[in-house]
Amino acid sequence: MRSEGKGGSMEGGRVAWGLDGVVVARTAISDVKGTEGKLYVRGYPAVDLSRRISYEDMVHLLLWGELPTPAQSREMIASLRDLRPWPEESADVLVRLPRTMTAIERVRTLLSLLGTGWERYPPTREDLLPFVARLPGGLARSWRASRGLPLPEPDPQANHVAHYLQQLSGSEPDPRKVRALESYFVLLAEHGLNASTFTARVVMSSWSDPASALTAAVGTLKGPLHGGAPSRVLDMFDAIGSPEKAEAWIRDALDRHERLMGFGHRVYRTEDPRVARLREIARSVADPARLALAEAVEEAGLRLLREKRPDSPLYLNVEFYASVVLEACGIPRELFTPTFALARLAGYSAHILEQVRENRLVRPEAEYVGPAPRPVPSP
Amino acid sequence: MRSEGKGGSMEGGRVAWGLDGVVVARTAISDVKGTEGKLYVRGYPAVDLSRRISYEDMVHLLLWGELPTPAQSREMIASLRDLRPWPEESADVLVRLPRTMTAIERVRTLLSLLGTGWERYPPTREDLLPFVARLPGGLARSWRASRGLPLPEPDPQANHVAHYLQQLSGSEPDPRKVRALESYFVLLAEHGLNASTFTARVVMSSWSDPASALTAAVGTLKGPLHGGAPSRVLDMFDAIGSPEKAEAWIRDALDRHERLMGFGHRVYRTEDPRVARLREIARSVADPARLALAEAVEEAGLRLLREKRPDSPLYLNVEFYASVVLEACGIPRELFTPTFALARLAGYSAHILEQVRENRLVRPEAEYVGPAPRPVPSP
Repeated sequence: MRSEGKGGSMEGGRVAWGLDGVVVARTAISDVKGTEGKLYVRGYPAVDLSRRISYEDMVHLLLWGELPTPAQSREMIASLRDLRPWPEESADVLVRLPRTMTAIERVRTLLSLLGTGWERYPPTREDLLPFVARLPGGLARSWRASRGLPLPEPDPQANHVAHYLQQLSGSEPDPRKVRALESYFVLLAEHGLNASTFTARVVMSSWSDPASALTAAVGTLKGPLHGGAPSRVLDMFDAIGSPEKAEAWIRDALDRHERLMGFGHRVYRTEDPRVARLREIARSVADPARLALAEAVEEAGLRLLREKRPDSPLYLNVEFYASVVLEACGIPRELFTPTFALARLAGYSAHILEQVRENRLVRPEAEYVGPAPRPVPSP
Repeated sequence: MRSEGKGGSMEGGRVAWGLDGVVVARTAISDVKGTEGKLYVRGYPAVDLSRRISYEDMVHLLLWGELPTPAQSREMIASLRDLRPWPEESADVLVRLPRTMTAIERVRTLLSLLGTGWERYPPTREDLLPFVARLPGGLARSWRASRGLPLPEPDPQANHVAHYLQQLSGSEPDPRKVRALESYFVLLAEHGLNASTFTARVVMSSWSDPASALTAAVGTLKGPLHGGAPSRVLDMFDAIGSPEKAEAWIRDALDRHERLMGFGHRVYRTEDPRVARLREIARSVADPARLALAEAVEEAGLRLLREKRPDSPLYLNVEFYASVVLEACGIPRELFTPTFALARLAGYSAHILEQVRENRLVRPEAEYVGPAPRPVPSP
């Protein structure tokens, strides 16, 4: 890396398109150990957190840096619950968004809509909580309204994840599904400097505001190279149909050089630690037939990929079993990426707060390869 | 720069917070020569473009890479005009946005609102034009509605910039002001990999969509370290009051270690070439008293800053005379940054199209400095 300005930096002719290996921040939030297949959040294994704590506790851990005491835990549950109702003018807009708007576009737009009249800098933890608290209900209402479904009364006693499921389905959710989805929320809440989290930090670097940073992050998450493709795993299962057809279907797909959905990750060089945990959650809630199909696809996919490329084996990524878990919890496919976004809001929030503590306006360089200077022709 | 993964990249302990000197893309769009004080767009000096061409021609130059022929020029005028009307459902929402929403938050939200039902990748030029075409009128209507002002009928004959002024003011705009504002639009349409343009490219790197990228870019532009502070130059003029008070006021401000508004830029090590052109535009439209005050502040500010820091002289930045020009064109202060955003939409669009031609998902590294691995305590 060179820092002496544009001329100097270009001598090497090196373009860091994906910023691979470029260290852009110091962080105390999470440690993604891609070669070891470990993920720690504030020092705790993410997998263990997803077994033991509530999403409210995870929000506390991410924003305050430590697990809450029992009193703090009750406080966080109360805070998120109290912050849930939308301001009247925005609540009116969210049910009027265009019917053609997809669910992830709703998340993006709702975050922007919540950032109203913002002037303060730097933001505090208390500034971030309303986004975390309001988005699940806001998304559920906006989505149901767009489909002409009745809008259920909120259950003021429900915790964060149960409230989301209740507002989405319109009925009291099965506690087993609530617990499975909550484990998913905790497990997916944070994952280092992925593209969307980095986006949030770049936005904050101009001293912008949480709504702008969160809106931008969700815009990045939306892309199919990042978080936008988990429902395609189910589309693939649908196309395969049954476990005994998995091997032939995958062999054909690989022969046509198609990408297998749910396989491969940019950072992990071994199995993503979240995959085993999601498989475990899937086993606790998913339909046995769906599970059998998923396991057949996993087995055949990994085997055939290793046959094809023995030197660079691919592993399952988080989308594979996440899609099975979300389906089992009753989340419609269109809401898979939005639900991922809801879980990740806590991680984004932690990075926003960390960015403002040690900030520099992000202003990289480009190598100019366009036309040489030329005069503007006379009219 | 290292690329062998996380472990290797951290050996140096170097953190590239602001990505200074890191080359993240090859671009044929513009060349910002910070040490020479030159700015070329597609090879043409930006200053000359702002004297000679319309904003519609600038959009063509940015998106197609070449200045339009006379026929193409007429076509672009017609395209942008035809694309102006908002889809009905979104048009209904834009006048209902919360009254407390600031104008730049409206731009961010309206861009997100326009990105409805997006599934395609990669986007084409034709996908970008509706955003450029619709935002000025959409912003003007949304802003007027929030203040309870009547919404003027659009003038279907007006070109891009005249239409914006007419929709904002509700009356036929003075052609001299239209021309001044159009020069501003052309001059500010593009400026390399600044923080907001980089944001747009990071968002696109996940194969996301134009609405997400533009929404994110405007969120970054909003920050006061980037585009969010031009109206503060006028606030400073108001505080100073009259030319003869400039020197004493600035001396006091510098003694209190306050930042002078409109002075200093991250990239330019000499005068930003756009400053002289904006001064020229200001002279053609601004109130003489306002101009005299601006020139007195410029003179005293530069002199005192050089006295204070003879080795690293600061120059005026683009915000200084931009604020004088925008005020003279009748743009309310709250709309200064939003108007900058409207001009820059063409540049963002060009970068979005360029990013998809040579893309890699942006995934930088962070140095982990948090707690060591620790077990999750038992409940």
